[in-house]
Amino acid sequence: METSSRLIEPEGSEEIPEKSEQRGARAEKSWQILRAAAKVFARSGYFNSKVSDVAREAGVADGTVYLYFKSKDDLLMSIFTTAMDDFIRRARAELASLSDPLQQLRRFAHLHFESLERDRDMAIVFQIELRQSTKFMEQFSSSQLAEYFQIIREIIETGQQTGLFRTQLSSRLVAKFLFGALDEMATNWVISHGNYPLTTMVDPVMDIFFNGVGTRHVTV
Amino acid sequence: METSSRLIEPEGSEEIPEKSEQRGARAEKSWQILRAAAKVFARSGYFNSKVSDVAREAGVADGTVYLYFKSKDDLLMSIFTTAMDDFIRRARAELASLSDPLQQLRRFAHLHFESLERDRDMAIVFQIELRQSTKFMEQFSSSQLAEYFQIIREIIETGQQTGLFRTQLSSRLVAKFLFGALDEMATNWVISHGNYPLTTMVDPVMDIFFNGVGTRHVTV
Repeated sequence: METSSRLIEPEGSEEIPEKSEQRGARAEKSWQILRAAAKVFARSGYFNSKVSDVAREAGVADGTVYLYFKSKDDLLMSIFTTAMDDFIRRARAELASLSDPLQQLRRFAHLHFESLERDRDMAIVFQIELRQSTKFMEQFSSSQLAEYFQIIREIIETGQQTGLFRTQLSSRLVAKFLFGALDEMATNWVISHGNYPLTTMVDPVMDIFFNGVGTRHVTV
Repeated sequence: METSSRLIEPEGSEEIPEKSEQRGARAEKSWQILRAAAKVFARSGYFNSKVSDVAREAGVADGTVYLYFKSKDDLLMSIFTTAMDDFIRRARAELASLSDPLQQLRRFAHLHFESLERDRDMAIVFQIELRQSTKFMEQFSSSQLAEYFQIIREIIETGQQTGLFRTQLSSRLVAKFLFGALDEMATNWVISHGNYPLTTMVDPVMDIFFNGVGTRHVTV
């Protein structure tokens, strides 16, 4: 239970309403520009896109984009950080209502897939456009992606303490393993123009994963 | 046993020596240019690189590069196809000497990691530079990558027939799952400037994987 609460409310954080009055109009406009950027990057590819294309898609002047974002790089990074912040907040909130590590991991995987499934532009940006440079990849891995992994690790470690998961496995490795499997399903769904809901892959993936890390056979 | 031989020699194919007289000087020069291209792309990123940078790195005139490759895109695609052809040939040859699906999959994973580990430039190109566009990703998935998946599927299906792996799992899904896990370890190794041999990750990954797909507990 203690681990569960740690999962939800890291020290010093408070629950922030998704669209509070404080964030207000500025956050709204900023998000509108990022949505437009995701659409443009998904359609034309990051390298072929210009900030002016993003402005046109967002229905604002070029100068307005620069009031919010320093550069095209900043737009791409901000899509990542904003969407990940949102995902991490949602995940911590939803996991708080569950205590079983199996249920928590399944919910986490479902949230991961659901967030890509509901926004194809964002999915293309996340699975492809964000992966194109060593520089970006290095920045991501020391950012919110570290928190994504941390959530999985905490659940795995709780499961190890309660005898559900094998204790000889490194939670760090297990987290990467799970991310790799989920990420490949997501990329495949994007590239194959998947005409199936990505979330249908949660159960088959978690079946293999749970049996892989579990101390006994798990029927999904 | 029949499945094993099918794995090694697909119909109509013959064993081709890695550097036969016939391939000779042209293949040698072509490979020299691709190695240089991998070095340049790994160092500067694909989008920031020019064909003239590749020519300089290879110690040839710009025109010489164009005798072998149509464009910068062609260089990137050719790095992929040449390295994958080599990998697939090596994998089929090595798997031929093994009959146990567990040993075959472990060897396959080892070959995958080893081929990245021995050439860091190539690893950066494979894990990052090749992933940057939907166009490339779509081309790859219908090319030698399909054969990579096919090798895993054949081994999985043999293992299912002999009662080693759970029959209710789709071999297609299992192949993607394994690739995802291996690929994430490889990307992580590249991004973290891994000062550990990537091949040390084979055993821990295959431990989780074998238990995930196996009908009984496997000790690695």
